Amino acid sequence: METDSPATEMTVDECWDFLAAHELGRLAFRLIDDLFITPINYAVDGRTLLFRTAPGNKLFGVELGGKVAFEVDEVTGEHATSVVIRGRARHLDEHDEHRAEVVRLHAWLDTAKYNVVEISPEEITGRSYALYRPWLHERVDV
Amino acid sequence: METDSPATEMTVDECWDFLAAHELGRLAFRLIDDLFITPINYAVDGRTLLFRTAPGNKLFGVELGGKVAFEVDEVTGEHATSVVIRGRARHLDEHDEHRAEVVRLHAWLDTAKYNVVEISPEEITGRSYALYRPWLHERVDV
Repeated sequence: METDSPATEMTVDECWDFLAAHELGRLAFRLIDDLFITPINYAVDGRTLLFRTAPGNKLFGVELGGKVAFEVDEVTGEHATSVVIRGRARHLDEHDEHRAEVVRLHAWLDTAKYNVVEISPEEITGRSYALYRPWLHERVDV
Repeated sequence: METDSPATEMTVDECWDFLAAHELGRLAFRLIDDLFITPINYAVDGRTLLFRTAPGNKLFGVELGGKVAFEVDEVTGEHATSVVIRGRARHLDEHDEHRAEVVRLHAWLDTAKYNVVEISPEEITGRSYALYRPWLHERVDV
């Protein structure tokens, strides 16, 4: 799956619809010179994403710089879709944390997570791909 | 899904078994001060990953610096697994490109991709999580 391959570009609205229909993505962030990637579950709030996190590298990375990239994808049979957001993340203060309740942002893990982080896109792109995987049909049923 | 939440740490062998059983991951890489994330299909070759790419940002990022993070995950019902590699990427020269054939690295898109990139882990971590998603059961069948 390459950005320079034949693919259908999604409109911005299509990208947001796709994000709203999913819950799990992967967040890439930096901590000084190091690069991290981690799965997170999120909710769409307007034209931002919200996620919860406990204190740790992820929150620290957000506080330090805030440049992030976020990706959500889906592969079904011969078709794949991927939406990527590049933008900024910021730790919401307590006056804004209620936004996570309004959009019903659920933590997938049964642990306390006090911090709500907002990702604001500077760029959102989505592509849908027709996959070419003939080897999936190479199996011989006996 | 948080790195500081209750989760089972996977052994290195378990991580490699998981990677070998999957084909699609997400690559995070840098280009100067910018951060990118993109889905790629890969194959395991020994204790490295290989993927194909056409000339573009991804290859340029690899040539420039090579620090990458790579993630593969799976969510099934009440259980999630995520394996993360942090390490270096390098563009294989033509004498090494045959490695991609040996491990049957297939491009999922029907386009020419001449460059083979190898990701060598400096760190590999995997976690499996018990999910807590009671709202999935809130639906009322009528």
